[in-house]
Amino acid sequence: MTYCVGVLLRDGLVFASDSRTHAGVDNYATFCKLTVFEKPGDRVIVMLSSGSLAGTQAIVSILRQRCDLGDATPNLFNAKTMFDVAGLISDATRDVEHRDSTRLKNHVPFNASFIFGGQIRGESPRLFRTYAETNFIEAEAGTPYLQTGETKYGKPILDWVVNRETNQSNAMKAVLLSFDSTMRSNLSVGMPIDLACYERDSFSLKMRRRFEQDDPYFTALTREWREGVHTVFRQLPEPNW
Amino acid sequence: MTYCVGVLLRDGLVFASDSRTHAGVDNYATFCKLTVFEKPGDRVIVMLSSGSLAGTQAIVSILRQRCDLGDATPNLFNAKTMFDVAGLISDATRDVEHRDSTRLKNHVPFNASFIFGGQIRGESPRLFRTYAETNFIEAEAGTPYLQTGETKYGKPILDWVVNRETNQSNAMKAVLLSFDSTMRSNLSVGMPIDLACYERDSFSLKMRRRFEQDDPYFTALTREWREGVHTVFRQLPEPNW
Repeated sequence: MTYCVGVLLRDGLVFASDSRTHAGVDNYATFCKLTVFEKPGDRVIVMLSSGSLAGTQAIVSILRQRCDLGDATPNLFNAKTMFDVAGLISDATRDVEHRDSTRLKNHVPFNASFIFGGQIRGESPRLFRTYAETNFIEAEAGTPYLQTGETKYGKPILDWVVNRETNQSNAMKAVLLSFDSTMRSNLSVGMPIDLACYERDSFSLKMRRRFEQDDPYFTALTREWREGVHTVFRQLPEPNW
Repeated sequence: MTYCVGVLLRDGLVFASDSRTHAGVDNYATFCKLTVFEKPGDRVIVMLSSGSLAGTQAIVSILRQRCDLGDATPNLFNAKTMFDVAGLISDATRDVEHRDSTRLKNHVPFNASFIFGGQIRGESPRLFRTYAETNFIEAEAGTPYLQTGETKYGKPILDWVVNRETNQSNAMKAVLLSFDSTMRSNLSVGMPIDLACYERDSFSLKMRRRFEQDDPYFTALTREWREGVHTVFRQLPEPNW
């Protein structure tokens, strides 16, 4: 399993992914699921990977190799819009699926999906996700965040505090707490957490940070959150029947 | 879908169920999923139903009819222990499954499971759940609550504040907030909520209450919780990078 979140804010984008991969609980490892495609001054695109590692790594490598070919081929560095980027990511997914799917056993079907977003000069920041079927949706004000993987445990905190007007600092805090709730209940989602933040119209990545186990900020944030939640709970009205 | 929770506390038991049933989003209805078997002074058994309504209703009716037969047959009113009650509920489930399963289409397989608990004189309060396969587990101090149905959205609040030593009032509040988080994200779980509370060694049900849409206490509880959570969130440490 995996947990990835992307948030579309008025003033930018926030992305985060866990880094646990596993083939059963007796075989797990750490791989970064956050990839950045950056052409400073022109575009920043951040991708978060969910699904089988062999598939998602191959798709990211194909996207990188196509960028390296320059303008000879459509790629993430010459796409005119984020919608075109979505098409390129979807196409690369289909290419890898076409190559691998017949060799995969039925109980491990090909499975790769991505949350990705960013800004290309001439557009506003945009946020998308592909499904395993390689079709895709775009976030908008009504639903400003997209999740993949183990989405449920970490959804209440996002619903409580995140909307389009949330500032980047608060969105980052909410996303980290969302990971804390998820990791508490699902062993297949694990530290470290990779977090990235993009500021609107900057065309360069504002921040990228990895939170390792025992990260002092993450530890303080989650401790204060839990203590605060307990205090609120103790002050709730008593049942009046 | 459904959401049911049972909590085993040092001083008793708390049960709650939603009341939404549906056959697709274009066909939903309200049915009570909480059933009480009570012999004052001797035993209280509370059952929460998950799964197909035809199945769970039939199982509950069979259990009632077997009680009406008196001691001619093993039943919930003459079982010596809650473990024996678990066997009787499992057996009744198998009886209905045996009758119906071959007539059900493959895409709607027979599916019925229960959270149930209570106290029979001579024992401590106990809490169980059956699985769709009709085997069952019992709650213990390490995991004092059991959920069925849409379990994930409402789990973080239970993990934050409920343990074996929690008092009944706080356990009821936590359970109601767990339903609030769940109903916010899953349309197939809906009001009214049926809540029951059993006090250890009382051998009669302490409280049973239905929370309708716009219930004043539920509304105040969830509003104060959300406002409090927002306040805690605003006071969390700022990212220090």
